[in-house]
Amino acid sequence: MKISELSRRTGVPVASIKYFLRQELLPAGRATAATLAEYGDEHVQRLRLIKALTALGGLSIAATRNVLAAIDQADSSEGALGAVSYALPVPVAAQSAAGDEEEAEADATAGAEVAELLAALDWQAPGTSPHVQGLTSALKELRRLDARYAPGELAAYARLAESVARLDLERAAGVDDPVALAERAVIVFAICAPVFELLRRLAQEDQVRRRAAGDGAEAASPR
Amino acid sequence: MKISELSRRTGVPVASIKYFLRQELLPAGRATAATLAEYGDEHVQRLRLIKALTALGGLSIAATRNVLAAIDQADSSEGALGAVSYALPVPVAAQSAAGDEEEAEADATAGAEVAELLAALDWQAPGTSPHVQGLTSALKELRRLDARYAPGELAAYARLAESVARLDLERAAGVDDPVALAERAVIVFAICAPVFELLRRLAQEDQVRRRAAGDGAEAASPR
Repeated sequence: MKISELSRRTGVPVASIKYFLRQELLPAGRATAATLAEYGDEHVQRLRLIKALTALGGLSIAATRNVLAAIDQADSSEGALGAVSYALPVPVAAQSAAGDEEEAEADATAGAEVAELLAALDWQAPGTSPHVQGLTSALKELRRLDARYAPGELAAYARLAESVARLDLERAAGVDDPVALAERAVIVFAICAPVFELLRRLAQEDQVRRRAAGDGAEAASPR
Repeated sequence: MKISELSRRTGVPVASIKYFLRQELLPAGRATAATLAEYGDEHVQRLRLIKALTALGGLSIAATRNVLAAIDQADSSEGALGAVSYALPVPVAAQSAAGDEEEAEADATAGAEVAELLAALDWQAPGTSPHVQGLTSALKELRRLDARYAPGELAAYARLAESVARLDLERAAGVDDPVALAERAVIVFAICAPVFELLRRLAQEDQVRRRAAGDGAEAASPR
């Protein structure tokens, strides 16, 4: 198909397709003349994924390139999920440790809180994991805001997160081809995160509305 | 205190403080000379919140301004939570409806899926809610990617989101002053969202690692 047909089938404007081609997010088509190329179904599929990652997942072009590389390099179904998990951008970046003593103490306190949580949950993650480092930074900032989690609160959230992750892994299962599995994992991990956040915001909205209406029993009932 | 002391106490560089002052995110200090001003504890508190919203919450300057305005305008504790909920940026923006028939049909299908979900959960949210519109856009895109949720899957995520929202509301409770309550709600709603996402990523990482190690029973156990 021509680029105009590719645009029609994906809803991505021709100018954006050309941008993705220049950025090498999308492989070039088969050249049929000096300025014409033919595209195939694999371009439709890849373009839909790029659109979803950037528009829904909120990924930058650089982050999208990382994720696509992890998909294309997937060579075993065991390795695919881990590679995708580390290729995705981290919600809170680890902060570079400042030299100052107070800062080092705050880092150590937050680090101990994370280590304790992981041990209590029996979660395996190395200290070098970007997720461990991001969580440490986030907890440090929350302490600074005087908004730390009460004892047990973070673990309660973590147990819910574990259930969500289990649903995620189930959705990403049942695909044998490593590249197809990696693509599925990207969709589940990256694009379904904003969906879950929307569900949470909707649930908050419902509960705030009930509370304002004096339906306190509902909002305060144990989970 | 002088601006240098404000910078030291919050870890925000002086240049950034001046930028936030120009952008009117931070109220001006009390002028003590033509080019000098004194700042108080309220500036420390506000600056920490701005830092957390932009660095941890990932909010833009414009979004931060919206949220701060919602805090400062909170005049009742009932209204504060709702105002904050709507002032926060939506994870997936509603898409402008294209004229084309296929697009209109896709919108209608996704809209029906959302309405059915809300009815099944007994969640109250008007069709004009930015969260309803965002979820509709997201489901439409997922269908396009051939990655729609299986029947019951979205509801399973939604029930977990409801439990998370209940924890959120509990954390935001127990504050009487509307402005203080709104500020607490901003922290819980905006800043704890990336924390939950990190917990979910950690849980995914743990489960991927166990699966790769052949510990399949654990990852596949019912939640």
